Amino acid sequence: MASMNMLSEIAERHPDAISFASGSPYEGYFDTESLHRHLRTFCDHLAHDRGMDEAQVTRTLFQYGRTKGVITDLLATYLARDENIHVDPESLVVTVGCQEAILLVLRALRRDARDVVLTVSPSYVGLTGAARLLDMTVVPVREGPLGIDLDDLTEQLRRTRADGLRPRALYLVPDFSNPSGRSLDMATRHRLLALAEEADILLLEDNPYGLYTRAETRPPTLKALDTRRRVVYLGSLAKTGLPGARVGFAVADQPVTGAGPGGLLADQLSTLKSMVTVNTSPLAQAVIGGKLLENDCRLSLANRRETEIYRHHLDCLLNGLDKRWPAAVRARLGIDWNVPGGGFFVVLTVPFRVDDELLARSARRHGVLWMPMHHFYAGAGGHRQLRLSYSRITPERIDEGLDRLKALVDEECRAR
Amino acid sequence: MASMNMLSEIAERHPDAISFASGSPYEGYFDTESLHRHLRTFCDHLAHDRGMDEAQVTRTLFQYGRTKGVITDLLATYLARDENIHVDPESLVVTVGCQEAILLVLRALRRDARDVVLTVSPSYVGLTGAARLLDMTVVPVREGPLGIDLDDLTEQLRRTRADGLRPRALYLVPDFSNPSGRSLDMATRHRLLALAEEADILLLEDNPYGLYTRAETRPPTLKALDTRRRVVYLGSLAKTGLPGARVGFAVADQPVTGAGPGGLLADQLSTLKSMVTVNTSPLAQAVIGGKLLENDCRLSLANRRETEIYRHHLDCLLNGLDKRWPAAVRARLGIDWNVPGGGFFVVLTVPFRVDDELLARSARRHGVLWMPMHHFYAGAGGHRQLRLSYSRITPERIDEGLDRLKALVDEECRAR
Repeated sequence: MASMNMLSEIAERHPDAISFASGSPYEGYFDTESLHRHLRTFCDHLAHDRGMDEAQVTRTLFQYGRTKGVITDLLATYLARDENIHVDPESLVVTVGCQEAILLVLRALRRDARDVVLTVSPSYVGLTGAARLLDMTVVPVREGPLGIDLDDLTEQLRRTRADGLRPRALYLVPDFSNPSGRSLDMATRHRLLALAEEADILLLEDNPYGLYTRAETRPPTLKALDTRRRVVYLGSLAKTGLPGARVGFAVADQPVTGAGPGGLLADQLSTLKSMVTVNTSPLAQAVIGGKLLENDCRLSLANRRETEIYRHHLDCLLNGLDKRWPAAVRARLGIDWNVPGGGFFVVLTVPFRVDDELLARSARRHGVLWMPMHHFYAGAGGHRQLRLSYSRITPERIDEGLDRLKALVDEECRAR
Repeated sequence: MASMNMLSEIAERHPDAISFASGSPYEGYFDTESLHRHLRTFCDHLAHDRGMDEAQVTRTLFQYGRTKGVITDLLATYLARDENIHVDPESLVVTVGCQEAILLVLRALRRDARDVVLTVSPSYVGLTGAARLLDMTVVPVREGPLGIDLDDLTEQLRRTRADGLRPRALYLVPDFSNPSGRSLDMATRHRLLALAEEADILLLEDNPYGLYTRAETRPPTLKALDTRRRVVYLGSLAKTGLPGARVGFAVADQPVTGAGPGGLLADQLSTLKSMVTVNTSPLAQAVIGGKLLENDCRLSLANRRETEIYRHHLDCLLNGLDKRWPAAVRARLGIDWNVPGGGFFVVLTVPFRVDDELLARSARRHGVLWMPMHHFYAGAGGHRQLRLSYSRITPERIDEGLDRLKALVDEECRAR
């Protein structure tokens, strides 16, 4: 997470810089009154749907609560309606953001130093951070054009085992990955599930952006396709609920031995959670619960406006890139970018070295921020790429920001 | 935390049992409307005292925030006014309850398996749980009548070092310990600080109950007496704010190398926190912030009614014990209890074995719950003691519960 600190420091030194760096959600629809409404909606639900008296309602919000959380039923309903994932609420654990879910799952899988986790590389820094905190080895697997290079996965599994290690799971973001924006196609999804079964590893599916597609339809998540309980689903509500609630969850319906009364991996996660945060703030859960209830437990419904906004932002960014570097120009200069089907990120490839020093110069001389891709590679890699986020920035700022970015790129190209 | 699960299961099976088991706070003053008021108070504060415009106020509540938290200044003011602890807000990290603060501090101190933490035994289960999650060895130190046996501390430090281990810190609750209710007197506080300096260890001072005294005055915390930055102060707002916010904090003003720009242990904790929960829900912090602001940043003021309630409950419990087992009777039977100066707990010593089986029988046959003390001992110990909590239970239930407890004790004494 050192990369995030580096970024914050540069951003603080250049408050007027236009930022393509932050993967935070769009702020235009934030509304303080909605917090009060969500809270009241959830309290009404406790009273009317769950038959609680006033003391019980108050207790639910104020006291310590169940470690697994107080909105597991609402989240299970959301998963069924929006994601076609059908699970018992008892297989859910509400966590302090998806980050805690990642940490708990890794801790549950790590019996000793021989247990390792694989990750599609480039990888979300939250995964590598949690693994570092737990002294757990992370083995990178090439992403490739399909979102995961299955041949490299097979090879890394073989090598890891040959080294006397135990590969327990593969972490990935199958839909609009952070940082690359890549997605797995249907055939790759099926092949990956079969390979996980064959290799006896879990798939840790993180899905913070899947809702935000350019197309009207979405491919099924790995968990929706999972008939053998190979997938632990990691849910974030930071982008679809609100970041300030810090509410995420894990779906872990795998039977495990020694997991206590329930006998599921979720029960083991719950025990571990009691040692990390005891439980997730019921107040924060109530706000998310209210938002779900006001939207028929569908985040797709709750995020109709946001979905449109992100589509529009992505169009603006892609059109802006096209306008500044038409096909012939970018072929000549060695500039390229991917065209994601949704999510928050586009990756720009350039013909010069991209590092923190360049970012500092970009901020100082051109007033534009972005994320050097090398931060997302466990090994070496990404030194000619930068990540552009279009979630929080407005279309006007995208346009101005691209002008500034072009000035930087032109300058670097000339300097070669 | 297996003990908590065991307790929850027994409690669920016996919903009509009277519980002296739960250390949760009193619920009589919980009021859902206060949550809305606290939120509005905090928003007004951001606008008027910090000069934020509406977008900035909304962003503070909704977006990801600083890892260290958004109410560090208010907490620093509270510490100065209520606890005579004067620290830079930059040495504070707001955490998801005190539990996360404990976890972060232990992780920061654990470089490898040779780094160990000492704890006064019997010990809070959250400390042993966090250490277990991190595979960190816990060395128990005898509590004794003074709250800590300093000779045993010296001996355990010597033995630990002789074993090639590095004792990094001693965890303790100097005021009304959980589970024993014991407190350190002034002389012991000074001696402990001197010993920590001499032995080059930190003191991890956890203080969830210190506010709730029987007397009008309170002894200074270790942190207030700390002139050499030997004390990391672990703050809980679960008992003095509200449990459902899950807001705690650490004060870690120790300079450390490699802690990033700030150079304090707090900065290292902040980096670690980004790998555990990213940040503490700003919504939850806003509710606590509002409560502080409405009470001149004094938790002593915010908890005047609660302080009186807990005094009254403790009187009821002690009088009830005296009435059922007058001095002569308890001397004959071998029954005894301590008389704490505040907090949430009294420990009852009995002349028979106390274990989970007895608790199950107590619930089934007598309808009364309590906590077997052996759960709080890392080694063997506590098998003739039970912990009685009087925080959440009402005086009427205390009286009825003591009748039921007496029936259990009588039965066990007869069976001997």
